[in-house]
Amino acid sequence: MTNPMQAKKRAFKDHKAKHFLFETDADGRVATITLDRPEKKNPLTFESYEELCDLFRALGRASDVRAVVLTGASDNFSSGGDVFEIIEPLTRMSMPDLLDFTRMTGELVRQIRACPQPVISAVDGICAGAGAILAMASDFRVATPEAKTAFLFTRVGLAGADMGACGILPRIIGQGRAAELLFTGRVMTATEGHAWGFYNALHERPSLLAEAQKFARTIADGPWFAHAMTKKMLDQEWAMGIDQLIEAEAQAQAICMATGDFRRAFEAFAAKAKPEFKGN
Amino acid sequence: MTNPMQAKKRAFKDHKAKHFLFETDADGRVATITLDRPEKKNPLTFESYEELCDLFRALGRASDVRAVVLTGASDNFSSGGDVFEIIEPLTRMSMPDLLDFTRMTGELVRQIRACPQPVISAVDGICAGAGAILAMASDFRVATPEAKTAFLFTRVGLAGADMGACGILPRIIGQGRAAELLFTGRVMTATEGHAWGFYNALHERPSLLAEAQKFARTIADGPWFAHAMTKKMLDQEWAMGIDQLIEAEAQAQAICMATGDFRRAFEAFAAKAKPEFKGN
Amino acid sequence: MTNPMQAKKRAFKDHKAKHFLFETDADGRVATITLDRPEKKNPLTFESYEELCDLFRALGRASDVRAVVLTGASDNFSSGGDVFEIIEPLTRMSMPDLLDFTRMTGELVRQIRACPQPVISAVDGICAGAGAILAMASDFRVATPEAKTAFLFTRVGLAGADMGACGILPRIIGQGRAAELLFTGRVMTATEGHAWGFYNALHERPSLLAEAQKFARTIADGPWFAHAMTKKMLDQEWAMGIDQLIEAEAQAQAICMATGDFRRAFEAFAAKAKPEFKGN
Repeated sequence: MTNPMQAKKRAFKDHKAKHFLFETDADGRVATITLDRPEKKNPLTFESYEELCDLFRALGRASDVRAVVLTGASDNFSSGGDVFEIIEPLTRMSMPDLLDFTRMTGELVRQIRACPQPVISAVDGICAGAGAILAMASDFRVATPEAKTAFLFTRVGLAGADMGACGILPRIIGQGRAAELLFTGRVMTATEGHAWGFYNALHERPSLLAEAQKFARTIADGPWFAHAMTKKMLDQEWAMGIDQLIEAEAQAQAICMATGDFRRAFEAFAAKAKPEFKGN
Repeated sequence: MTNPMQAKKRAFKDHKAKHFLFETDADGRVATITLDRPEKKNPLTFESYEELCDLFRALGRASDVRAVVLTGASDNFSSGGDVFEIIEPLTRMSMPDLLDFTRMTGELVRQIRACPQPVISAVDGICAGAGAILAMASDFRVATPEAKTAFLFTRVGLAGADMGACGILPRIIGQGRAAELLFTGRVMTATEGHAWGFYNALHERPSLLAEAQKFARTIADGPWFAHAMTKKMLDQEWAMGIDQLIEAEAQAQAICMATGDFRRAFEAFAAKAKPEFKGN
Repeated sequence: MTNPMQAKKRAFKDHKAKHFLFETDADGRVATITLDRPEKKNPLTFESYEELCDLFRALGRASDVRAVVLTGASDNFSSGGDVFEIIEPLTRMSMPDLLDFTRMTGELVRQIRACPQPVISAVDGICAGAGAILAMASDFRVATPEAKTAFLFTRVGLAGADMGACGILPRIIGQGRAAELLFTGRVMTATEGHAWGFYNALHERPSLLAEAQKFARTIADGPWFAHAMTKKMLDQEWAMGIDQLIEAEAQAQAICMATGDFRRAFEAFAAKAKPEFKGN
């Protein structure tokens, strides 16, 4: 007798991506996405936007992946939308096409937020424009001291209101600092980013990816059903009043308390053993 | 002629609590609640949850108490819900009972937020799970350098979404840092907590409680009707738009300007005297 | 053939203010408002509140001003509502008049937020009460090490809920620090304000105004149509959910992509030239 909800799941361990690298741990629990056009500092293109959207959406049905690391090749994170491959075509588009484009890029943030896996951005070097947005949209961010993050939109005559930045960035670093970054497009240094709560930790370049993956592994070996609920509720309560968010969490946590993971974790604790989480 | 609204009030100066210590200053203005099962690091139990809820609800009608200090006995704040007294029974409950439980714990946060008195948590040593939530739900937090605060829920297979943490903690320390604490359950050190705005101040262990009570006394000797309005509006405006929150404060402050406390404070200022606040 | 929308615009270059100083750069792009009753540390009065409201509202139709610096004369920012000129009359007013007053002061915050120009407060010395609110309501804040900012309302028996402080201040410096400032009325030092994200930068007294105006000039020479959209969206998304704010930005940015400023910025980039923004 099959479980129709499980029947929809599939493994991503052997998934191949076209417009970026996709690799996983031996057991598929930690996936690493690497933007890899280092000669242009890993820009986003129409194709990579779309494939990233599809991938994060599909990860909602992953049977194996429990945490995602997002990084860039060769000492840069991402230069964002390429000026000639993205900006130039946009300057010639009709309004309906422009709106399709801004909705597509916004959709990528939505899918990063909607996928059940926590996403860890590992940021080195250039992290600009839509690249900075991808880092912002992640659940965690680690960086090297050389990371240079800039919300550059203003430099090409656009608003800082791109892919959710005016709403999300202030909640991470505060309204005043976010305003400065979004109005000026200036670089936030790694030191600033760490002091302001944008980066969870700084690591030296040679160990950045390994540290991000180690962190992702810790998350992945945890209670991933409950983690997915934590992620969902962090977003769900974004604009709720206090009474409403307390009720929302009463329901969310009661769901988690009805799982075997909770019972098994208690039993492991009582037996002074390490709990094994099964996601059910 | 009695005032029916004042008739509902009662003094808490001689109130005795069953499942924790409840003491007040000589005049009843500052109440101190001490979780006092030091042999288990002051855990919360079904009984203490319920009595704390009832107490904070009842404080809405206190004629004397104007500020509350919340602390723990013997160099620890609180270890949260006890694993054997709370977690174990939960692993055997039906969904309606689970929801009753999560609503009861959430109700404690609601009552801490709803009571008109500012609440100051004085945190030393272990401050974990529901203990960390109590500190988070307070208006102010002071701590010793030895304070170790951890939102531990993930360790027993649960979500970070407990008693409002996913909605409230990000507003205190930022979305990125809150996510890290809630997904990993790791300890936030006192130094981190102070730098991130979780703790308002750090004090050495021998002076922690006295400093918290001194701070509470300053608050208690202030305009407590207006303070209750400040507390109410901090929560009330949590998820309001800017235009709406400005109108809400226009109404709230007009109410305060109609009090004798406002007039007397002006008169005291003009006479270079210290104002005496009467709460009317 | 006239453009009826442009016909409504007017230049502010030669505007004179009655109850404060109003000056602009040679081309009118940067306006500087100086509260200038230094003998009383630049208090706000019924008249200056009203004229500031009218001015910020009128700036919505400015053909020249693209950024506003707000400062105070002679080494102080503003002492807020004067105790004898404002507080005393308030203690004798009827409720409808009180509400008219609190709505008028709130309206000033609304107009500072609603005007399309980014507002930079340059803060030195005393920045108290409604003065602190004006700084808080600005888009950016720079200060000298001598700046002393205090939300003093509690000292005259009022709530911290004044002109939007309970809703806005926590988003800038975090809920816990904001609560402390609003309940106690204590001074936030310049060092604290900088570490907490209230101040974007500190400058020595002799260079404060020049630095603020230089920063304003950089903003003013940027894409002011897009800047106005950034400002609008920072407020607009204040209490939106994540999905809603992403859609809101998709629409806002598509509008900006339809401007000539965007096309010209791309062309300038391609030609390795400096873009010239025309606001259309």
